Amino acid sequence: MKEVHYNDYLELDKILDAQFLESDKLNQHAHDEMLFIVIHQTYELWFKQLLFEVNSVAEIMEKPVNDNSPGLQTVVHRLNRVVSILKVLVHQIDIMETMTPMDFLDFRDMLRPASGFQSWQFKELEARLGLKYQHRHGQEYYISQLRQQQIDIIKKAESQKSLLQLLNGWLERMPFFEEGSLWAEYKSLGADPGNTGLHQFWADYRQLYSGSLAEAENANKAYFDKVFLDSSASEENQLSPRASRAALFIMLYRGYPILQLPFQLLNNLLEIDEQMSTWRYRHMSMVHRIIGTRIGTGGSTGKEYLKGALDKHYVFAEIARLTSFLIERRRLPELSKAMEVRLGFVQK
Amino acid sequence: MKEVHYNDYLELDKILDAQFLESDKLNQHAHDEMLFIVIHQTYELWFKQLLFEVNSVAEIMEKPVNDNSPGLQTVVHRLNRVVSILKVLVHQIDIMETMTPMDFLDFRDMLRPASGFQSWQFKELEARLGLKYQHRHGQEYYISQLRQQQIDIIKKAESQKSLLQLLNGWLERMPFFEEGSLWAEYKSLGADPGNTGLHQFWADYRQLYSGSLAEAENANKAYFDKVFLDSSASEENQLSPRASRAALFIMLYRGYPILQLPFQLLNNLLEIDEQMSTWRYRHMSMVHRIIGTRIGTGGSTGKEYLKGALDKHYVFAEIARLTSFLIERRRLPELSKAMEVRLGFVQK
Amino acid sequence: MKEVHYNDYLELDKILDAQFLESDKLNQHAHDEMLFIVIHQTYELWFKQLLFEVNSVAEIMEKPVNDNSPGLQTVVHRLNRVVSILKVLVHQIDIMETMTPMDFLDFRDMLRPASGFQSWQFKELEARLGLKYQHRHGQEYYISQLRQQQIDIIKKAESQKSLLQLLNGWLERMPFFEEGSLWAEYKSLGADPGNTGLHQFWADYRQLYSGSLAEAENANKAYFDKVFLDSSASEENQLSPRASRAALFIMLYRGYPILQLPFQLLNNLLEIDEQMSTWRYRHMSMVHRIIGTRIGTGGSTGKEYLKGALDKHYVFAEIARLTSFLIERRRLPELSKAMEVRLGFVQK
Amino acid sequence: MKEVHYNDYLELDKILDAQFLESDKLNQHAHDEMLFIVIHQTYELWFKQLLFEVNSVAEIMEKPVNDNSPGLQTVVHRLNRVVSILKVLVHQIDIMETMTPMDFLDFRDMLRPASGFQSWQFKELEARLGLKYQHRHGQEYYISQLRQQQIDIIKKAESQKSLLQLLNGWLERMPFFEEGSLWAEYKSLGADPGNTGLHQFWADYRQLYSGSLAEAENANKAYFDKVFLDSSASEENQLSPRASRAALFIMLYRGYPILQLPFQLLNNLLEIDEQMSTWRYRHMSMVHRIIGTRIGTGGSTGKEYLKGALDKHYVFAEIARLTSFLIERRRLPELSKAMEVRLGFVQK
Repeated sequence: MKEVHYNDYLELDKILDAQFLESDKLNQHAHDEMLFIVIHQTYELWFKQLLFEVNSVAEIMEKPVNDNSPGLQTVVHRLNRVVSILKVLVHQIDIMETMTPMDFLDFRDMLRPASGFQSWQFKELEARLGLKYQHRHGQEYYISQLRQQQIDIIKKAESQKSLLQLLNGWLERMPFFEEGSLWAEYKSLGADPGNTGLHQFWADYRQLYSGSLAEAENANKAYFDKVFLDSSASEENQLSPRASRAALFIMLYRGYPILQLPFQLLNNLLEIDEQMSTWRYRHMSMVHRIIGTRIGTGGSTGKEYLKGALDKHYVFAEIARLTSFLIERRRLPELSKAMEVRLGFVQK
Repeated sequence: MKEVHYNDYLELDKILDAQFLESDKLNQHAHDEMLFIVIHQTYELWFKQLLFEVNSVAEIMEKPVNDNSPGLQTVVHRLNRVVSILKVLVHQIDIMETMTPMDFLDFRDMLRPASGFQSWQFKELEARLGLKYQHRHGQEYYISQLRQQQIDIIKKAESQKSLLQLLNGWLERMPFFEEGSLWAEYKSLGADPGNTGLHQFWADYRQLYSGSLAEAENANKAYFDKVFLDSSASEENQLSPRASRAALFIMLYRGYPILQLPFQLLNNLLEIDEQMSTWRYRHMSMVHRIIGTRIGTGGSTGKEYLKGALDKHYVFAEIARLTSFLIERRRLPELSKAMEVRLGFVQK
Repeated sequence: MKEVHYNDYLELDKILDAQFLESDKLNQHAHDEMLFIVIHQTYELWFKQLLFEVNSVAEIMEKPVNDNSPGLQTVVHRLNRVVSILKVLVHQIDIMETMTPMDFLDFRDMLRPASGFQSWQFKELEARLGLKYQHRHGQEYYISQLRQQQIDIIKKAESQKSLLQLLNGWLERMPFFEEGSLWAEYKSLGADPGNTGLHQFWADYRQLYSGSLAEAENANKAYFDKVFLDSSASEENQLSPRASRAALFIMLYRGYPILQLPFQLLNNLLEIDEQMSTWRYRHMSMVHRIIGTRIGTGGSTGKEYLKGALDKHYVFAEIARLTSFLIERRRLPELSKAMEVRLGFVQK
Repeated sequence: MKEVHYNDYLELDKILDAQFLESDKLNQHAHDEMLFIVIHQTYELWFKQLLFEVNSVAEIMEKPVNDNSPGLQTVVHRLNRVVSILKVLVHQIDIMETMTPMDFLDFRDMLRPASGFQSWQFKELEARLGLKYQHRHGQEYYISQLRQQQIDIIKKAESQKSLLQLLNGWLERMPFFEEGSLWAEYKSLGADPGNTGLHQFWADYRQLYSGSLAEAENANKAYFDKVFLDSSASEENQLSPRASRAALFIMLYRGYPILQLPFQLLNNLLEIDEQMSTWRYRHMSMVHRIIGTRIGTGGSTGKEYLKGALDKHYVFAEIARLTSFLIERRRLPELSKAMEVRLGFVQK
């Protein structure tokens, strides 16, 4: 086998010879520009890694995941890694903040119109996770900033099945909801006041949930029906009522063996949203601290622009909102024995 | 000298015997309630420490700080500590997030109407830093939640000179602005198109700044005058034009010895705001993740309420905005030799 | 239901009235002593929480854990929390380091002979995890520092089944190793050169492992036999050969559903060791930085003492060392179909 | 001015096309190898940045730093940045730890004999800080691993003035120790029992320090003389007695304006050592966790090798040890009025 050398293996000749300061080209050396370049390069390397992990996860989820294959474990494990990486990316902002506004001014004008908005890998990542074009903040603006080749990459990512869509399919396919025999012994409350047409279990749950609400929370009743009953394909929703019910079931009965990894999966997706949101928030604060109300190098209005994305770019908000529909463990409908066996391991 | 024992010194008999679970009282032991109590107790201990540091800093700044006394160094050092503590408080949210929504539901209803909004120490801290009652989000609401004794504590804090006000006084007293001889040799651009009535240095700076603006940034001209000229005591402003000029001067000429600690002071205050803001943001996200759109135990609308505070509770926003008024180092007005000596150390 | 108030619920009257500075008693107020007290109190609160979690985990593991009960999931979840807390405890050292050596000197002598070595909760925690008295660094010394009542607590913890012992029992009970029919179809390499008397699977694995070693690693052969064959109850070992084999099996075949949580369990225990070790290391560095080569307030030789514990106090070292015995996934013995079914979920 | 595009500016075509998996070349795709490559590349990018900062700091310190120039402030600011970067490098180990031992085994053998020991940038960094060749752990080994060109780079770094040596020169040049008039009014204790030949101030300090020692600490007396008196150029010492006295003076009287940045400088250097040491410790633990007692890809004994460097590679240990020689603030010799003026700012 050929010997491998650290330097060649890591392509360090390329990696370490890729920092060219604009300020040097203009003979106005600005010390902090080196940091500016290096930190962005590490961000892009990590974005590449994040895309690599997310794509590999999508590939696994595209196939029908058999509960007994290691697929789901791999998915959970890799999403854990995604979370770990995102935490470091948040932390890296501390380094950027050692650059003072005056130090940035030394080379800021030399960069125009380059801008962090041109990070097509980050947009590709958002799209792979499940952010749709129509939900983006400042759609035209970001397209105007990118080259056609980069726009194509993002468009392609938007056209592929996103993690959120794959999750939806996977939730919809949960087998035990379909197996009538499992539910035969289920002891119901015996009425479906809403004529929901749902399985009796959900009709019961709907009643229990209703009963748990305080008066001020009454709006949640309609909200419940919208999420779990209304299949009229809304543009806004990427999670169907059926998939939403499966996800809620996982949260409620996570103690059963077969639901343990699915629960971790949902949790990891929420954690990814939270870390990305924290990253956006700290990034916005940092930009505000460094450029104030000035115009960004890419021509944006800086902080205001970034703020717009904060609320709109939650990818897994439809999972997060399920939290509103939980009831206390001690009031949960009891599952049938057959169901309990089905949710567990083979026993001798 | 009496011997000291770790256990007595730290009052561990009290500290470790102060966790009483409501769920135990109701014979419905909820495991995670212990975490809920302990984490809040650590938060309150740290709030006490933060108040202790901030009060000690205020005490130093209440006296005219002589540049040659160690006062300013102590102030900077202690604010550094405040930042360190806030970073840990942000990090602690990771621990809280190991509590799932279902686990919280097990004891959530037992806590009503207790709520994190009843942390009067946190409100006292905000007040000591400089948050005024009229800038608070949801004023009446928070008062309705507290006991009279606690309201009194916050009211007292609001009536004392806050860190921001003390900073204003300290900036206004900066001596070398008043010493005419220092400016005698100053080479001016020679005109004051705005008839600002300011010292020629600032009239010059105003022109230079104007010239640095892109067309799209024109609104910043009026903004400059509002911040640095308009003394009409606005309710909104706690930093006077005079103090604002001094703070800007520190940012621009931070290289001179006498301005180095003042620069660190301004930086630390911005860092405190940023950490508190990050804490609020992550706290809000966590609450959203745990209770969704349900009503908070204290009766608030949970996330929505917390969101309101995000933008309004920046205490040192008036320092942060100065960043908008910087110009490049190489275009700065040159100071006179006399001035340079004045800003430096005694030399033999 | 009685109304609950934040202040009463958290016992803040006690918690916030438990900071009494020795330097104040001596009328030599040392500002940093407050930090010293508060940070130690938060550490002790967290130690209480860690004990609470570890004890609850031990309680679950004391009962035979059925694979279909939620017990193991709860164990993994709570150990995750333990890791989260330990990370914050490591981070808190940053706060302590804002205290300079000179600032500590201001009150250091007033504390004698109190010392961090008197934290009996930390020792109790180590004991509950599995640190035996005979493996402790400086045994007599630590006992001489504590009160009888505290020694009793630690002794009791040492006499209870530790997490490591409970793990050993749990690993030894892994059922599918005993079920002969599962192994009927197993295709063996067909020889047991070591006359190990083990099931053919392990005889095979032993050969495969041997073959994977480089010449310089030959010592690992004898090491393998010592760990997986030699039942002569060594004082050093808390993990039996049988339990060690089960743990190795989990690491090798973690992809099978029934092994996924067990794998997370092992990982969490290693992570706990690593975080505690990082804490000890940073604590040692901090003590060195603050007191240098001076004698600790408790009379110890400071850094040197702490250094002794670094290597000896790894509790789960016997799990960590299993890493040395892995072979590549593509060379693993193939399991029988019957075995694969047994390691999976019930399918329709 | 030419327009700048994000993609070109950051040389992303090079940076993002530099990940070639050995496992792919052998048609045995190992998913985790991508992470392995990317994380090492980010480490090397950050090492480049660290070198850039350290070299710029060395360049400033090579010139006689005038107290009134902004040089020292820049030095302190950039070392702060170095600390921030090192903290992220420590944090990144969390990401590496998402790679399990089994996952690493999938491609480990394909990398031989490449090894992290071949990171010449890290060795260059250690050398620039002040690690001498003769103090390195495993000298011949590391040289045998590197290419001549890389060895030359490190050798060159070792031959340049290191940060530690530059610090020594800077401390030795502290002007006010030489200015006799400043000390004229100094009220001495009036005796020099050690016939130290030092200025009376230090003879006094020596006595005060002696008096502060407990009996068990008596060895520190001889230690004091070795550090502050014995100029016999020891191979071990890079800090002369004269420089050591200046550094101690800074620690003791850090409250005076002219000593405030010097104090921060010393603190930052200690912090750099601590972060690098934490990095080494966590790196060692991670290697142990992933490869156990197996031989490293570069042929080293893995953990044992790394452990050797832990204690020996502290660069600024000679500053750290000064902590042992502090006395309480209230017992410090009082400086003369002339001295106090000299240590302060110009006043009107």
